[in-house]
Amino acid sequence: MKLLIIKIDTSQEVEDALSIYAMDNLNALGVESRNRSDFEQAGWLHDSTVVDMDDIKDLPKDTYFYAYFDEEADRDELVKKFQDKMQELKGYGLNIGDAKITTSYIEDQDWNTAWQKYYHVINFSRHLAIVPKWEDYKPAFKDQQLIKLDPGLAFGTGNHKTTQLAMMGLERAIVKKPISVVDVGTGSGILAIAASKLGATDILATDISDESMTATEQNSALNDIKNIRVQKTSLLADVDGKFDIIVANILAEILLELIPQMDAHLNEGGQVIFSGIDYLQLPKIEKSLDENGFKIDLTMKQGRWVGLAITRKEK
Amino acid sequence: MKLLIIKIDTSQEVEDALSIYAMDNLNALGVESRNRSDFEQAGWLHDSTVVDMDDIKDLPKDTYFYAYFDEEADRDELVKKFQDKMQELKGYGLNIGDAKITTSYIEDQDWNTAWQKYYHVINFSRHLAIVPKWEDYKPAFKDQQLIKLDPGLAFGTGNHKTTQLAMMGLERAIVKKPISVVDVGTGSGILAIAASKLGATDILATDISDESMTATEQNSALNDIKNIRVQKTSLLADVDGKFDIIVANILAEILLELIPQMDAHLNEGGQVIFSGIDYLQLPKIEKSLDENGFKIDLTMKQGRWVGLAITRKEK
Repeated sequence: MKLLIIKIDTSQEVEDALSIYAMDNLNALGVESRNRSDFEQAGWLHDSTVVDMDDIKDLPKDTYFYAYFDEEADRDELVKKFQDKMQELKGYGLNIGDAKITTSYIEDQDWNTAWQKYYHVINFSRHLAIVPKWEDYKPAFKDQQLIKLDPGLAFGTGNHKTTQLAMMGLERAIVKKPISVVDVGTGSGILAIAASKLGATDILATDISDESMTATEQNSALNDIKNIRVQKTSLLADVDGKFDIIVANILAEILLELIPQMDAHLNEGGQVIFSGIDYLQLPKIEKSLDENGFKIDLTMKQGRWVGLAITRKEK
Repeated sequence: MKLLIIKIDTSQEVEDALSIYAMDNLNALGVESRNRSDFEQAGWLHDSTVVDMDDIKDLPKDTYFYAYFDEEADRDELVKKFQDKMQELKGYGLNIGDAKITTSYIEDQDWNTAWQKYYHVINFSRHLAIVPKWEDYKPAFKDQQLIKLDPGLAFGTGNHKTTQLAMMGLERAIVKKPISVVDVGTGSGILAIAASKLGATDILATDISDESMTATEQNSALNDIKNIRVQKTSLLADVDGKFDIIVANILAEILLELIPQMDAHLNEGGQVIFSGIDYLQLPKIEKSLDENGFKIDLTMKQGRWVGLAITRKEK
């Protein structure tokens, strides 16, 4: 299988907007950004990659945004849509950089290899790091939990910001034992695995896709984790029982479908952790939470992305 | 020494506003709130205390707010000021509850004892808890770091929300070694101690007050910590050298004085963590950060309180 790559020479300011547009509206197989600052930065690894500068022949002026599509996709139409989107973003007063769009095709296999070169350890926090399975990493602190991951093409490199916000919520919430967690829309299984590493005793990971079930089981095995069950279903439909923590790192539109299902699946005194919310969508989420008997305890915002810790309203 | 206690039967909605008013405008020695939900809630210990319900003879309808003053303070004038403040808050459409104000005097010693009854372990996160020195606490997770604290009258029970936001910032930032931290306005020394427990190698704690220097040294000793130096100074004035992390949990007005001092004391790639910002003050802080070459990486908000993770702008 070959992949169509659309590469846009742009600015960091529109990176998130392009990611959402490519994934949600154009059904991209994956997206990726390379920021100049990622390459220049060293030592501080949050949401960035550190690469030997000599390795880089093609350093972005500001940001290269890449979207990956099936080779059968209509290249000219996609380019046109990205051009229109860039003009729309420019109209909002955003910096779109040079806005130069180029296209190419590569073998899927090559892409995986190229990608590994840029996808390195992410130090989410003092106690949690994500380590790609091909990476040999020695943490600065011996008790840092390493989450080994083979993200695979299906999930791209994910969005580190939204994952980190959800993990901060988990680190704050997992303070008792035993504690049960359901990870809704688990994708690669990363948050379910983080919950297990943090000491959650009973974990369910749900997702609507077969690929996610396979990836979650493989990534669980990679981490020697045995307390994660998987269930293929839409959100919490058909899920039995209640949990101490519901965590969901999915787009706001899907969270709106999840909210009415939560009360029936949350233990008394339980917490809900959301991530993946574009800040423009926050008012809708707040309204729906309020209507369903929930309130926001903590709001975390990084760039455009918002994460929430949520509890039931007091009676 | 005796203490004057002013007790207001009110609602949780105005608790933070009353705290700020009492501390900043009326120079209260300490403030305290007891919410009905604190007493009813069990298991989830964030920013709350768990008490045996049989112990409670005087359960608040919603919230009891207490402010403590020197016995020499003008009681009638303080009551009048609180009455005016309550009417002002009511004018904003806030729920002030019954707004009944009562006063009493107790021996300082009694107050300390009474207070200990309500001040228990706070589970800030999976890896950090604050344990009052008189408490025998067995954490659910063996590797949870316990910060033993004798908060003392000088600092009251502190504001757990702002402390927690700062600690979340520290847990996210301390990912390499060696790493140096300066805690500006350290008070009881709690954030300096948290930084040490998280693995920071070299820590300076500054404060303008003698009481803070003593408390920080005593609390460091209580935790067997030897890598915290103290320096009595205003913010970073007279401080030598640069740090990887600057953390400051102080009121916004004071942060505005700190911001222009930061660049000279922050290592390349370093991070600044702020807490203690009332959300209404956030625009002023943002403007000052921008003018001084800094940008906000992460915003955390709980109730009225905002915490920030800050980096230098990219060149």
